[in-house]
Amino acid sequence: MTARPVVLATDFGASSEWVGVCHGVIASIAPQAQIIDLAHDLTPFDVAGAGQILRAALPYFPVCIAVLVVDPGVGSERRGLAAQTGRGDLLVGPDNGLLRAAAADIGGLTGVRHLTESRFHLPNVSKTFHARDIFCPVAAHLCVDAAFEDVGPPVDRNGIVAAWEPRIAVRPGSLVCEVINVDRFGNVRVGARPSVLRDAAIGDDPVWVVSPGREMAAHRAERFADLDAGDLGIIEDSFGYLSLCVNGGNAAEKLGVKLFSAIELRSKAN
Amino acid sequence: MTARPVVLATDFGASSEWVGVCHGVIASIAPQAQIIDLAHDLTPFDVAGAGQILRAALPYFPVCIAVLVVDPGVGSERRGLAAQTGRGDLLVGPDNGLLRAAAADIGGLTGVRHLTESRFHLPNVSKTFHARDIFCPVAAHLCVDAAFEDVGPPVDRNGIVAAWEPRIAVRPGSLVCEVINVDRFGNVRVGARPSVLRDAAIGDDPVWVVSPGREMAAHRAERFADLDAGDLGIIEDSFGYLSLCVNGGNAAEKLGVKLFSAIELRSKAN
Amino acid sequence: MTARPVVLATDFGASSEWVGVCHGVIASIAPQAQIIDLAHDLTPFDVAGAGQILRAALPYFPVCIAVLVVDPGVGSERRGLAAQTGRGDLLVGPDNGLLRAAAADIGGLTGVRHLTESRFHLPNVSKTFHARDIFCPVAAHLCVDAAFEDVGPPVDRNGIVAAWEPRIAVRPGSLVCEVINVDRFGNVRVGARPSVLRDAAIGDDPVWVVSPGREMAAHRAERFADLDAGDLGIIEDSFGYLSLCVNGGNAAEKLGVKLFSAIELRSKAN
Repeated sequence: MTARPVVLATDFGASSEWVGVCHGVIASIAPQAQIIDLAHDLTPFDVAGAGQILRAALPYFPVCIAVLVVDPGVGSERRGLAAQTGRGDLLVGPDNGLLRAAAADIGGLTGVRHLTESRFHLPNVSKTFHARDIFCPVAAHLCVDAAFEDVGPPVDRNGIVAAWEPRIAVRPGSLVCEVINVDRFGNVRVGARPSVLRDAAIGDDPVWVVSPGREMAAHRAERFADLDAGDLGIIEDSFGYLSLCVNGGNAAEKLGVKLFSAIELRSKAN
Repeated sequence: MTARPVVLATDFGASSEWVGVCHGVIASIAPQAQIIDLAHDLTPFDVAGAGQILRAALPYFPVCIAVLVVDPGVGSERRGLAAQTGRGDLLVGPDNGLLRAAAADIGGLTGVRHLTESRFHLPNVSKTFHARDIFCPVAAHLCVDAAFEDVGPPVDRNGIVAAWEPRIAVRPGSLVCEVINVDRFGNVRVGARPSVLRDAAIGDDPVWVVSPGREMAAHRAERFADLDAGDLGIIEDSFGYLSLCVNGGNAAEKLGVKLFSAIELRSKAN
Repeated sequence: MTARPVVLATDFGASSEWVGVCHGVIASIAPQAQIIDLAHDLTPFDVAGAGQILRAALPYFPVCIAVLVVDPGVGSERRGLAAQTGRGDLLVGPDNGLLRAAAADIGGLTGVRHLTESRFHLPNVSKTFHARDIFCPVAAHLCVDAAFEDVGPPVDRNGIVAAWEPRIAVRPGSLVCEVINVDRFGNVRVGARPSVLRDAAIGDDPVWVVSPGREMAAHRAERFADLDAGDLGIIEDSFGYLSLCVNGGNAAEKLGVKLFSAIELRSKAN
């Protein structure tokens, strides 16, 4: 039906057999499908953090069929969904806010279906591994013999679980925001774009950063290399977010923050 | 000759160059071959544990040519083998029990060959990296220009190393079994199917679990979500085995067990 | 234009979304391209160590288009390059010595281009993620609609950053060399081939190994299995280098060495 690749993102861990089995299931149903692994080291059970990562990543992919699984509620009554984006992708995964967050920058969700058509699932559906038994089979069938409308009845898109949105509070001289990603180098992405700094009238250099129990200056920079070694900097990161970093060091450790920590950016020291 | 995909499973580690080089060797010999990574984070040198994982995973793959390598004896006199399964797969790897364990639920082994035909190996065979120099080249040639019968002489399938089988002891009110897998969330899979609980006349709820130095109750559940947070539960896991788990916690830590630990399940407390 | 696969090697980490996004970008530009992951667990920022790994690995790959990224200078004035090898590969990455090291055993570099043609880059080029914004797009265009000569003007190949070369000092009875790789099992590869031992007239068994603060005997062996458990051995490893190993143990820990440590091999104890 389509030559769109199947994109997989999970919290199953790198090179785990759970990821391998998902590939096997897709290859069994749709032998010609091209499969692209987006990420498998998403933080286990962290739907909110995964949503922010997927939102930033998916604009770099071709229009695709994506299986997106961070699913702490697997086996409960939460629904399985397929959703169409404004760009034309089909996203498959649990009803926990992940699909909506992932679609935010590829046109949002334009239609949602409840995955009730069991002919597109494996014959035996386990209680705990719906990626293998439902989501990947549905994605594979969408490649070969199912249309979006076939997988189940429509769902009101306002009736699905809302995406987590990072909180943000803007006052003159103060921007309070949340950490939405810490990468393996300790760079700290917050849930705000550079334009919000201007909205908060934080125009000076340095910017003062208040994290739990700490306050320090961050120098504005365009790139890591502009910072002195060990100095805290604030940059626009490669996905367009404000990010705190240390040239050759670990900003998360320096600030004492982790995912979802609140951070205040200020034009003046407290 | 065939469009079967090549499936790889090793203990080489996620994203290591050893895995990459295996892909490179296969692509050099069989450029059209589709390669699927089943797992590369198998526990180093643990043939028995890997066999249990592969046995559970392979039924979810299409009929394939699989290179299966956990090989503590590489460079010794152990043989390299290719084996045909009842389902039609060809499994390639060392003679250490791994292939037979892997084939258990895809029809068992119906024929075995000793990999002596060096024209299907790389020109220079190292002492320590037979996955690269022998197993992957043979698998790639099986995709393009070799039949199963070409790779070497037949071997009596009763003459190869036996697969490790988890020990199990069933008495009225008591089932002693072994841990065959601990996943990254700490869920503890034991080498017994739910039907064995009935054989042992363990019909009550809770089931009592005796691990080294500890004894505690496990509540029967269909899924994690049915358990109170922090409580130990016993479920049928997604591959059909009995599994001990803690909703939102780590069952292996709670029980103080690891791979191959003995566990007793009892109908009554000691 | 070509059916050469695209090979990726980075220090981005296994299954990270950075790797996934690179796949997505290539698939967007060159949907038919076959992508092979060589390695993504290269040590962050370690250009020299990565060069040694890539040099050893690339001869096992088909002639390819390779994106090779360990790039501590991203966002500085360092150039982006494409380079042709004697074997016909095209290597794409930063001008920091990595491409030259990687090409050493596939014919060396026969031509180099500076990646200035922005029509082959993404429309928005970030300061910190040139793998996504420049290197992968160029590699993908080389698959479909760009020739090597199109990507930018030629660069004198003697004008690019030199590859790191491990130091080596040979005297009668003594070979001083550097550790160029420590694998996940603790095997210690040094920057010398077995023939150098003969050049140093180190012909006896055992060979004496002097590492910082330690001296111990290493037995010559062809394979791990020839060593007694726990004994230090010296072998020719699977990539043709001298390697120190312990059967069932960790040679790096036993010797107290890591990447770039100096090691002296001696025919007699000090």
